[in-house]
Amino acid sequence: MKVTLERNHLLKSLGHVHRVVERRNTYPILANVLMSATGDGLDLRATDLDIEVTETVPAMTGTPGTTTVPAHTLYEIVRKLSDGADVVLETDGNDQMLISSGRSRFHLACLNPDGFPDLKSGAFTHSFTIAVATLRDLIERTQFAISNEETRYYLNGIFVHTVDGPGGVVMRAVATDGHRLARVEAEAPAGSAGMPGIIIPRKTVAEVLKLLDGVEEGVAVELSDTKIRFTLGGVVLLSKLIEGSFPDYERVTPKNNDKLLTVDRASLARAVDRVSTIASERGGKAVKLSLTPGQLELSVTNPDHGTANEELPVDFELDSFEIGFNARYMLEIVSQIRTENALFLFNDAGSPTLVKEEGDAQALFVLMPMRV
Amino acid sequence: MKVTLERNHLLKSLGHVHRVVERRNTYPILANVLMSATGDGLDLRATDLDIEVTETVPAMTGTPGTTTVPAHTLYEIVRKLSDGADVVLETDGNDQMLISSGRSRFHLACLNPDGFPDLKSGAFTHSFTIAVATLRDLIERTQFAISNEETRYYLNGIFVHTVDGPGGVVMRAVATDGHRLARVEAEAPAGSAGMPGIIIPRKTVAEVLKLLDGVEEGVAVELSDTKIRFTLGGVVLLSKLIEGSFPDYERVTPKNNDKLLTVDRASLARAVDRVSTIASERGGKAVKLSLTPGQLELSVTNPDHGTANEELPVDFELDSFEIGFNARYMLEIVSQIRTENALFLFNDAGSPTLVKEEGDAQALFVLMPMRV
Repeated sequence: MKVTLERNHLLKSLGHVHRVVERRNTYPILANVLMSATGDGLDLRATDLDIEVTETVPAMTGTPGTTTVPAHTLYEIVRKLSDGADVVLETDGNDQMLISSGRSRFHLACLNPDGFPDLKSGAFTHSFTIAVATLRDLIERTQFAISNEETRYYLNGIFVHTVDGPGGVVMRAVATDGHRLARVEAEAPAGSAGMPGIIIPRKTVAEVLKLLDGVEEGVAVELSDTKIRFTLGGVVLLSKLIEGSFPDYERVTPKNNDKLLTVDRASLARAVDRVSTIASERGGKAVKLSLTPGQLELSVTNPDHGTANEELPVDFELDSFEIGFNARYMLEIVSQIRTENALFLFNDAGSPTLVKEEGDAQALFVLMPMRV
Repeated sequence: MKVTLERNHLLKSLGHVHRVVERRNTYPILANVLMSATGDGLDLRATDLDIEVTETVPAMTGTPGTTTVPAHTLYEIVRKLSDGADVVLETDGNDQMLISSGRSRFHLACLNPDGFPDLKSGAFTHSFTIAVATLRDLIERTQFAISNEETRYYLNGIFVHTVDGPGGVVMRAVATDGHRLARVEAEAPAGSAGMPGIIIPRKTVAEVLKLLDGVEEGVAVELSDTKIRFTLGGVVLLSKLIEGSFPDYERVTPKNNDKLLTVDRASLARAVDRVSTIASERGGKAVKLSLTPGQLELSVTNPDHGTANEELPVDFELDSFEIGFNARYMLEIVSQIRTENALFLFNDAGSPTLVKEEGDAQALFVLMPMRV
């Protein structure tokens, strides 16, 4: 194999594919990137056995061929080469690859490409094109609520499915860790209606989000009930889905909460941030909300440090009421509210609270209370 | 005690003093900042028993008094208050301090100020004023070479003394960890000649460097053989010195190295950075320099990864010669060279190498070779 290509092109594509490679690997070849020089360019492929990312870099192929070299090392080398330089990649048998650019020469140990795993997409049942902004919203606004508990593996991703709504079919993304839940919806792209409910793993959505930067046209999505493939610009990301049943999130989404609080989103966020300064990690960063007509008092008590409280003028017209929340969970949800006011719908101090935007909003959040 | 002051003034001064407070303390009061309200303002003081930082904040004192509260917590609270707001600090006996600003109210637990340690400066034997740029140079250009080995505590700081030079008395700063040495000098400020040789601890020089930001006039320095006091703008930093003898650095500074290499500083830095990409931490990040007339070849061999080499055109007119250095140590020294070329003066592959700037430079570095 021998190819000549622009350092900047190679750097950009390696930047896309090398991130999926784990730092520690059981099988040495998983640390490598597969490189195949063809008449059309240089194909790059990297995988962690759950996600596979591929991209083709424009290249002049002298001798076609295939090899694998350590992905992170190659990325670091190419990153340090001069901006705009040409790079020549050349193998001698299958033992070593010579990387030369200007006065620099590197020899990297290769591994036989025959052992490189292939994730195999299988047959897809649904395919559609989704707008970049829509896909970004569905991921960004739910990602924070994904569970980290490995034992509840079916919560370690974003659940996506389609639902018949009053205005037509919608695509819904849902994530929860049992303490809070985020549900965001968008008009279902043509071709997605009736797709199976799928759970996209945490690492996959994080990679897709990074790959969205700079993509302008829509993203092509193909899926079955075990795999999903995203085509973003020239990059193709194939991922396994989480096998398992996502819990019935409708059952934990309160329907009859009728105590309405309307509060300025930005003021609330600043006040919660301030009073939580003295909350202890041990006490679960609990903040107490005390509602009286027209006023919200936020307070934190930490036996080791002291107390904090702050009052906010709000729209609230019912009987006095107290409830506690984890300050960080509350802040993460409030930061997703895009309207001037945030709407809180309470039932009682022991039941889940609904948080929404003003108007007919596409996002809805559920927050479990804490005892305070 | 009751004072009213501007949040921005309080934040700036707390920013200066709270950094010296360690996160974990044997004595609870060391986590606190001492606050004394007088007719002249609010005096702040914080210490870790080795360094003491004091500053007075403009304040309207209602009731004079003294107390102590947790320094980092208070800093975080004040940081989150609104820009430009007024803050009222008020104690009720000595148990709690009330911090109020706008609609926010915090109660923090106080500790009795009687137990707050006083570093006591003792009598100073020398005092002088040093220009900000000079002090910054002396610290910044030697700091990187300070040893981290706690057993060699006398190397855990910068050694400063005055020396009679051909052009008059100079002040010299020296730091070494046994692998490399940095020696920087400047014209001795009036009053410093004959000062004792002192070792200023790592944390002290790092704090002084941060406090230099924004200081325009000179820095007043007072010292004895056990303490040093810096007055930087309104901030006063008093520090213990390291007791012990700094080694005779002149003895390890080569005098007769006569193999001269002249190399473009920036090209060398980039090339060392590139070839070191494949160096292993295990192998000590060794880079080999192979000199032949007019050319320097840098190379790295890592049995696990491969090899890297790069050639640079240089001024070198002697017999071929090879020597190895730690890539990081070499980069740190080259980054201190301010002239276009760096001058290397070698003796042999087993002896310390001298690195200098062109001309009559004030900085001089020594680099121990590695076997490659």
